[in-house]
Amino acid sequence: MAHIELGVDENRFPGINGPMAYRPETGKPLSELAEVLLRGPHTLSAGERELIAAYVSGLNECTFCATSHSAFAAAQLDEGRSLVDQVRANPDTAPVSDKLRALLAIAGAVQQDGRKVTTALVDAARETGATDLEIHDTVLIAAAFCMYNRYVDGLGTLAPDNPNVYAQAAQRIIEQGYLAR
Amino acid sequence: MAHIELGVDENRFPGINGPMAYRPETGKPLSELAEVLLRGPHTLSAGERELIAAYVSGLNECTFCATSHSAFAAAQLDEGRSLVDQVRANPDTAPVSDKLRALLAIAGAVQQDGRKVTTALVDAARETGATDLEIHDTVLIAAAFCMYNRYVDGLGTLAPDNPNVYAQAAQRIIEQGYLAR
Repeated sequence: MAHIELGVDENRFPGINGPMAYRPETGKPLSELAEVLLRGPHTLSAGERELIAAYVSGLNECTFCATSHSAFAAAQLDEGRSLVDQVRANPDTAPVSDKLRALLAIAGAVQQDGRKVTTALVDAARETGATDLEIHDTVLIAAAFCMYNRYVDGLGTLAPDNPNVYAQAAQRIIEQGYLAR
Repeated sequence: MAHIELGVDENRFPGINGPMAYRPETGKPLSELAEVLLRGPHTLSAGERELIAAYVSGLNECTFCATSHSAFAAAQLDEGRSLVDQVRANPDTAPVSDKLRALLAIAGAVQQDGRKVTTALVDAARETGATDLEIHDTVLIAAAFCMYNRYVDGLGTLAPDNPNVYAQAAQRIIEQGYLAR
């Protein structure tokens, strides 16, 4: 049971979906931000961006978001679930590109505190070929999930146990995106 | 100097203003979210909501955001700067209403981790007359500033020393809102 009366069946609107339905005025910009960051035209694939979101949500121990975005990443990465699990366990040893590893290091710093993003971390990312836009969006994806995670857990929303819920959500996101929510 | 080339004079576009100009696709939903949360029609005044934003930004030690939203709160509260300083120093002893004190306690919990928002904190707020919408928006304001703060500091943006910069920004926000940025 969420901390407030969301006006929807939480089993049908788990996690962030309940608060988004409860307050559409804020739900709209929240959905638009996710759509641009995770699915807009980009040099990073949607799977790579969902992986950053899953990694940060895991660090914040937000069960609903980490499970959701792990499923969304797995469904859009050739390497699938195994890669997601390896990145979430340890991005330093996971079989990702040097660029994605450097971006994940920036995302991990943002999760702790924006001031943890050092010039050294940014330079290291740039040496792997990361562009300013990729660095910008990595910082903002990580920062945004520090918001989404706190929103979902701060309202005490439901995180279903059934993995099918997240697999179905992944198909819906891939087919319709975040704006259809 | 910010970590990436923002394409604007940082002295004219300090703090979040540089990244917002650099990436208008994300700047738009970020501005819309701030406008709804901090200036939309509400039972909490704009000054009270800016006070929550200033308090959370202070806890995150984000100089640009804490200084900005402290100025925005001070300019819109009858009690002015003195109240803002007292709340940021210790909301438990600051001369605010019981309701605002209870909402600030929820905001402080969200700043640490969404899971720190307990049923007891929510019940305490409700006993002071806080509505579900006020509780929802307090959680989301606090969560959103955990994003804005990390965005501003994660990109290493400029926080001007000159207090006039923030006082002028306060007048601009009061007159034109967040969407004019």
